[in-house]
Amino acid sequence: MDSIMREKIEELKALVEKSEVIYISSHVRPDGDSIGSLLGLGKGLLKQYPEKKIMLRLKDEVPSYLGFLDVSLVKQTDVYEEKGILLALDCGDKSRIGIDGLENIETLVNIDHHMTNPNFGDLNIVLSDASSTSEIVYDILHGLGVEIDPEIAEPIYTGISMDSGSFKYQSTGARTHEIAAELIRTGFDKEKVVRKLYQSNTLSEMLLIKESMERIEFLRDNSIAMLLITEEILENSGMDIKEVDSIVEIIRDIDTVELVFVLKPFEDKTKVSIRSKEKYDSSEIAQNFGGGGHMRAAGCKIDGDMQQARKLILEAIGEGV
Amino acid sequence: MDSIMREKIEELKALVEKSEVIYISSHVRPDGDSIGSLLGLGKGLLKQYPEKKIMLRLKDEVPSYLGFLDVSLVKQTDVYEEKGILLALDCGDKSRIGIDGLENIETLVNIDHHMTNPNFGDLNIVLSDASSTSEIVYDILHGLGVEIDPEIAEPIYTGISMDSGSFKYQSTGARTHEIAAELIRTGFDKEKVVRKLYQSNTLSEMLLIKESMERIEFLRDNSIAMLLITEEILENSGMDIKEVDSIVEIIRDIDTVELVFVLKPFEDKTKVSIRSKEKYDSSEIAQNFGGGGHMRAAGCKIDGDMQQARKLILEAIGEGV
Repeated sequence: MDSIMREKIEELKALVEKSEVIYISSHVRPDGDSIGSLLGLGKGLLKQYPEKKIMLRLKDEVPSYLGFLDVSLVKQTDVYEEKGILLALDCGDKSRIGIDGLENIETLVNIDHHMTNPNFGDLNIVLSDASSTSEIVYDILHGLGVEIDPEIAEPIYTGISMDSGSFKYQSTGARTHEIAAELIRTGFDKEKVVRKLYQSNTLSEMLLIKESMERIEFLRDNSIAMLLITEEILENSGMDIKEVDSIVEIIRDIDTVELVFVLKPFEDKTKVSIRSKEKYDSSEIAQNFGGGGHMRAAGCKIDGDMQQARKLILEAIGEGV
Repeated sequence: MDSIMREKIEELKALVEKSEVIYISSHVRPDGDSIGSLLGLGKGLLKQYPEKKIMLRLKDEVPSYLGFLDVSLVKQTDVYEEKGILLALDCGDKSRIGIDGLENIETLVNIDHHMTNPNFGDLNIVLSDASSTSEIVYDILHGLGVEIDPEIAEPIYTGISMDSGSFKYQSTGARTHEIAAELIRTGFDKEKVVRKLYQSNTLSEMLLIKESMERIEFLRDNSIAMLLITEEILENSGMDIKEVDSIVEIIRDIDTVELVFVLKPFEDKTKVSIRSKEKYDSSEIAQNFGGGGHMRAAGCKIDGDMQQARKLILEAIGEGV
C-alpha cells in the first residue's frame, strides 16, 4: 500500500470515528462486486464500530444469484432520510448511486476502481488498477485494523472473483492474489461460493448460448461481433432480459473476436454491453455514447431501438452499414 | 512448506547434483498442467545446472492450444535411450509416462498431485492437496534456490491456471494464490496466457455446446448428466474428437448437475470423463473401472462401445437402464 492510500484510509478512519450515522451504498442494478464490497465493508464496520448506526442501502434489489450471501443486512431505499455520511462503493459516477436525499449527506466518500471515475466525492479512494472495489475494501478494512473473519471474507472474495472473471482479467494483480490467499486462510466456504457463482448455470442460460450462436453478426474478419437480444432469443431460451448479460463474455472468448457488442432494449433506449481484447478500448467507445467503464469492459445507453443503436455503433467504429 | 517436503527437496537436490543425464517427462496425451510443470521444471533446472544434460521428453505431442509456450524444448520419444535419472511429472501412475526403456532409468522421481498416485517412484513428491503439479514444481524450484524469471513463471502459471479452473476448483488453496502472486511479480505476460487459454474458443467449440445441449441425457432429477460424443455432434460442430474434452466442465457447471459423464470412442474402448460437485466422488467411480483422478475430476476407459459403457456406468451408480 502506498503512502497516499495510507493517508486516505487514516482520513476515512477519522471521519468514521466522529460520525454517528453511516450510510454505505453501492450502485443501481448491483452486481457481484457492488454487493461483495457493500457487505464486506458493512460487516467490517459493524464489527469494529458496534455502537454506530451503520446502514447498508441500495436503490435496487440484490440479484437472486447473490442470495447465498448475508443480504438481509441490505435494505432497499429511495432516499437517505437521516443526516450522516455516505460511503459510496463501486459507483463510476455519482448518478450511479440512484438514491435521493443526498442533501442529507454531510460527507461523501467515493470508493471505486473505475478508470472513468470523476472523483465526485469529498474524499476519493479511487484505484483504477485494482481488480475490483472489493479488493480496495479489503485494504481499507486492513488499514482500519479490522480483523478479517470468514463472515467478512466471503463477500469480499465473491466481489473480487466476480469482477476479475475468477482472476483472469488484466486488472488481476499480484495484490489481488495475495488478498485471495489471506481470505482463504480465514476458512470461509470457498467451494460454496464457487459453486454458487460458477457452477450454477441454468439450462436456460445454456439455451441462451445455443440461440445466440445462431444469431451473432460477425464483422471485419470475425474480429467484431454484434448480438441483438431479440424477443425470439428470450422466448426460445426462457431467459429473462435482466439476466442475459453474461452472454457478452462468452462471445468475447471466441478466438477471433477482438470487440463485441451485445444490445438489448432498456426502457425506450438500447443498453449496450461492450467487451474487448488488446486491440480496442471498450471504455473509449462507451464514452462516445455517454457511457463508461474499463478498458476491456464497458457499457452505455443509446437513444432509439436496437436497429438504430446498431447503426450508430457501426458508424462510430468506422464500419459501413 | 513442511519439513517432510523440505527433506524430499534436499534429497532431490542431491540426486540432481550427482547426476549427469536427467530426463524430465510428463504423461501421455499431455494437458496444461503436464506441459506447464514440464517446461517450468525443465527451464528451472537448465538455468541452475547448465552443464548437465537435461532432456524434456514426451510420448505424445503437445496440444496445439499450448503452442504459445516455449515447446521447442520438448521432444517426442518412444524410448529412454541413455542411462540417467527420470523426473516424472503429473503421472497418476507409472504407465502414464508411456515411454519405454525404463530399465535405463537409475532413479525414478515421481512428482505428482493425484490422490490415487501409488507412489511408484524411488523418490515420491506427491502432494494430493496441491492444485496442480505445476504448483509443486514452483515449491521445488524455490527449494532448489532457482530464481524464478518470467520464462519459468509463464509455464508454471499456465499449469496452475489450467488445472485449477482458473483458481476455482476445491484444490485451490491459499498457497496456490501466493504462488500466483509471486509469478505475476516476475512480470511475465499474464494477459497473453489468459487470452490463449480462455479467450480462444473457436466457433466450432461454441457449436459443440450448441449440439451437445440438444443431446444431453439427464437422470435422477437432472442431477446426473450423460453425453455420448456421436459422429453427428462432431460433424455438425466441426470439432475433432481429440478436442472435445472441455464440454464435460461446461455440463458440470449447470446448476442441477452433481455428476456428469462424457463418453467418446477411444480405439476399441470408450473413454469416459467424469466430473462431480460435493455429492459424488469422481475418483471412486473411475476406480470401479480401473481409472483414477481426483475427487471432483476423474476418468477411465471401459471395454465396449459407448452404448455398452453407458449401461455399465448406469449400473455402477445404481440407476436402472
